[in-house]
Amino acid sequence: MGVTTKDSHKQHISQQFNAELSELKNHLLVMGGVVEKQVSEAVEALVKGDGGLADSVLNRDEDVNRLELMIDEECTQVIAKRQPTASDLRLVMSVAKMVSDLERMGDEASKVAKMALKLSEEGEAPRGYVEVRHMGENVSRMVRDALDCFARFDTEKAIAVIKEDKSVDNEYRTATRSLVTFMMEDPRSISRILSVMWVLRALERIGDHACNIAEHVIYMVKGKDVRHISVELAEKAIEGRR
Amino acid sequence: MGVTTKDSHKQHISQQFNAELSELKNHLLVMGGVVEKQVSEAVEALVKGDGGLADSVLNRDEDVNRLELMIDEECTQVIAKRQPTASDLRLVMSVAKMVSDLERMGDEASKVAKMALKLSEEGEAPRGYVEVRHMGENVSRMVRDALDCFARFDTEKAIAVIKEDKSVDNEYRTATRSLVTFMMEDPRSISRILSVMWVLRALERIGDHACNIAEHVIYMVKGKDVRHISVELAEKAIEGRR
Repeated sequence: MGVTTKDSHKQHISQQFNAELSELKNHLLVMGGVVEKQVSEAVEALVKGDGGLADSVLNRDEDVNRLELMIDEECTQVIAKRQPTASDLRLVMSVAKMVSDLERMGDEASKVAKMALKLSEEGEAPRGYVEVRHMGENVSRMVRDALDCFARFDTEKAIAVIKEDKSVDNEYRTATRSLVTFMMEDPRSISRILSVMWVLRALERIGDHACNIAEHVIYMVKGKDVRHISVELAEKAIEGRR
Repeated sequence: MGVTTKDSHKQHISQQFNAELSELKNHLLVMGGVVEKQVSEAVEALVKGDGGLADSVLNRDEDVNRLELMIDEECTQVIAKRQPTASDLRLVMSVAKMVSDLERMGDEASKVAKMALKLSEEGEAPRGYVEVRHMGENVSRMVRDALDCFARFDTEKAIAVIKEDKSVDNEYRTATRSLVTFMMEDPRSISRILSVMWVLRALERIGDHACNIAEHVIYMVKGKDVRHISVELAEKAIEGRR
């Protein structure tokens, strides 16, 4: 309206601040989207023996790294300029943590892609593809759900992701055990089966990082740190009757 | 002196702030000390087949977790109350990142301790102890050095840690390759050799986290983010002629 009063100045500042926070949030979701794609394509590359797709996953690792640096810088900037407190500060600190989890997920996806390349050169492993496909689907869904929780500040869904992680861990143990048995029966396949085992391990780790993101969402929304406690206690914490 | 002037009030606040920052730093070093011990004792437990020592490593995992929660909370508090900027803010943000690396190192040490227990029950693996001992020594030194860089804000030493990580990665690859060959020759040892391979992988990961800490120290001291660049570029960055 042409007139700048102290109030309208304040309002302007707070609008800008909100815009910066939602930009930060969006950037994390963009990075999450790239990582989600990395994970599902790395699994696809392995299962289909598609070396080209594995290459494209490896090439996109740089994008993930660049986004990590950018978002970390944004977190520091927003704190320095806006001095957020309470839930705004929790958002920024959680983003700074989640960005590390996303970067690690991207790294693990790259490991899967490298194993996909290795197997496409050495020839298929005789076992383990069913397990990779199945765990890959579960873990991809966990990643998607964890990002969804963050986008919607949805703590109920966050709890579901934490629960899902337990079943992925079980799946991992069962799959590994049966692959070890198979290796003993067919020692010539040891090297290729080991590649599959590294893939399963990478997927299990990706699940762990999705679980970390879910825990950060709960902290961000509820102000309660639910790391290192049982899922039952975490559930109570979000209901506020700890 | 009985008289409170505005200046002495300001000075008081800034003294308190400095005290809080150095407390934060000390707490990270305390956590680092616990983790360093976890790593070296887990390796010792494995190499000596000492189940009791492995148990005590596993029991101390809780301490690491508790310190993680405490330090993260302190980081948020100090930002909310003191609104640090510039190098003070970089210190706090770096501590928030390093605390996650330390916690992961503690987790990996626990994995080593679990494998030590497993092997002390199943019987020794026929190979791999020399490699575990050697990599264990190198990685323990990296952890100690990374914490030292942080304590002294020593970017030169940080570069040395980053370089050391490359040689640990090479060591890991060589050791893994020779263990795979051995497995093929003696399939009955597969399960026990695999345990040793998981241990080597855990040690390799611990080295990665030490390297991350070194990178954060450089960011903290120089304000330059040297993640995802070559060690040569990192060296130039600390000399300020990038």
